[in-house]
Amino acid sequence: MYINRISHYLPTNVVDNEYFTELNNLSSEWIVERTGIRERRKAGEGENTNTMAIAAVEALLQEIPYSKNQIDLIVGATYTPYDTIVSLAHAVQHHLNIPDIPVVSVSSACSSLLNAIELAEGYFAMNKASCALVIVADHNTAYNNENDTMSGHLWGDGASAMLISKERQTEGDLFIRKIITGGAATSGKAVEAVVLRPNERGVVMPYGRDVFQNACTYMPKVSQQVLEACGLGIKDIDYLIPHQANHRISLNVINTMGIPEEKLLSNIQRLGNTGCVGCAIALSENKDRFKKGDRLVVTVFGGGYSYGAMLIEV
Amino acid sequence: MYINRISHYLPTNVVDNEYFTELNNLSSEWIVERTGIRERRKAGEGENTNTMAIAAVEALLQEIPYSKNQIDLIVGATYTPYDTIVSLAHAVQHHLNIPDIPVVSVSSACSSLLNAIELAEGYFAMNKASCALVIVADHNTAYNNENDTMSGHLWGDGASAMLISKERQTEGDLFIRKIITGGAATSGKAVEAVVLRPNERGVVMPYGRDVFQNACTYMPKVSQQVLEACGLGIKDIDYLIPHQANHRISLNVINTMGIPEEKLLSNIQRLGNTGCVGCAIALSENKDRFKKGDRLVVTVFGGGYSYGAMLIEV
Repeated sequence: MYINRISHYLPTNVVDNEYFTELNNLSSEWIVERTGIRERRKAGEGENTNTMAIAAVEALLQEIPYSKNQIDLIVGATYTPYDTIVSLAHAVQHHLNIPDIPVVSVSSACSSLLNAIELAEGYFAMNKASCALVIVADHNTAYNNENDTMSGHLWGDGASAMLISKERQTEGDLFIRKIITGGAATSGKAVEAVVLRPNERGVVMPYGRDVFQNACTYMPKVSQQVLEACGLGIKDIDYLIPHQANHRISLNVINTMGIPEEKLLSNIQRLGNTGCVGCAIALSENKDRFKKGDRLVVTVFGGGYSYGAMLIEV
Repeated sequence: MYINRISHYLPTNVVDNEYFTELNNLSSEWIVERTGIRERRKAGEGENTNTMAIAAVEALLQEIPYSKNQIDLIVGATYTPYDTIVSLAHAVQHHLNIPDIPVVSVSSACSSLLNAIELAEGYFAMNKASCALVIVADHNTAYNNENDTMSGHLWGDGASAMLISKERQTEGDLFIRKIITGGAATSGKAVEAVVLRPNERGVVMPYGRDVFQNACTYMPKVSQQVLEACGLGIKDIDYLIPHQANHRISLNVINTMGIPEEKLLSNIQRLGNTGCVGCAIALSENKDRFKKGDRLVVTVFGGGYSYGAMLIEV
């Protein structure tokens, strides 16, 4: 399958580290050293997961290579829902006014991007769809406690949309050669390390070290699996896009894999942890950088735990 | 694909209509006349979407026809999450201790059961799984405002689990011949009629009449589509299991379709609206009633809006 177009949306409001210095007495140097994060975006008044999803879709439609009415599947992904009934996928369907196609939203926390794309792959395999709109959006600040000195400064908001078709549509399409996803709820402190219980309190991360260790284990492992499944090796990768949770995790992942830092694509410095959206934004922001023949690996890890990797050929 | 086993879990705490007479001055006769509901179950202290999902899986495992380690996909569905990061699917994976298989949770509100099964169908079509555990759970009372005189008395809690395999496993398997799902967020008051915004307030249903009308339109329509796709007609149906939202909706659906009331399977009277779980509980509760050769249609409708139908052959 092929990514025909990809877009992203970021709220305009920038929150710098000094905000958390004032709030929680955390110095910017301390935050940068531990996370790589210098600033992040925060959704404004009236913005939410659904409006950001629609904004990303609006950006996408400016350069769509065929009629929006060819879209025959909408998949949304978020773990920070504005509405668990009228999900972001339904909000987008309503906005686009495309009736009577399958519409569903998924969540596997920060790894949901690959679960959503794999879900579309399934509809293509069943011949129940041929052109999917996949939207990821996370409104982390809606559930974040900014006063939490452990994780309050990590989170940012954003959305991304992509058109994915079963068959090639344009010369510039990105070919998705292989996806592997997996749940790792059996590992470490998976079911308590990162939680978001809407009726208790927002997102909390009491076991950051366990998350760090498992992320650094699973992302290299599943990336290797995807490469091996395609008969490729580390040296064949032109760019690696890991889940944008923490720059130290990203550096650990490329060190483990033996990938030089110039092949690492990051936005954590400017955007913080944008949840399941981070890798999609990285794809969208760098789309003009990719050259014909480039191979990218996108690899994700999320609370719960879950993980995945996807090999893209430009 | 085939349903090998199905189970359900219901909390023990029964809430009768008199509870709402005391609370909201609604007579039991008035509730029964308008909804058919006489009582519903309410999760107890310490119970939630994830614990109910695990309880349903425990009930399932008592009669599983093969090793639990053959399960190679876990799909959860809920719109009333206990944890949006550690989803019910992850909680079940952790409980079963089956590592490294795809694990994902979906939501299309009350129609999520069929979206979850269709997701499994997609993994089967991709040859990425052959034996899926599908769990649906809704903890409506966690998000319900009991003082809401419009919809506070409608909701009940419960969970159901089913094993679904690509190939037949036992003589008693239920054959899923066809599934169709669709989003209808373009219809009526789809994006405002039933909402659950965790950061605002619980589930509210300000446009019950619009929900009623669309449910009564879409369930007969998609049931007909599923039958036509199989070269069958209304007369070929032995049982109809519509979404258990309101007995008046169910009666309207069978009247529209020309199905006699003895072919309608209901639990709304005893359980209220158990969200995406209602139809699964009806399948589970009636499994010993079905005879070889029987044909069942399960049809769902949910806020958002979304709809679906599934033809099962016993």
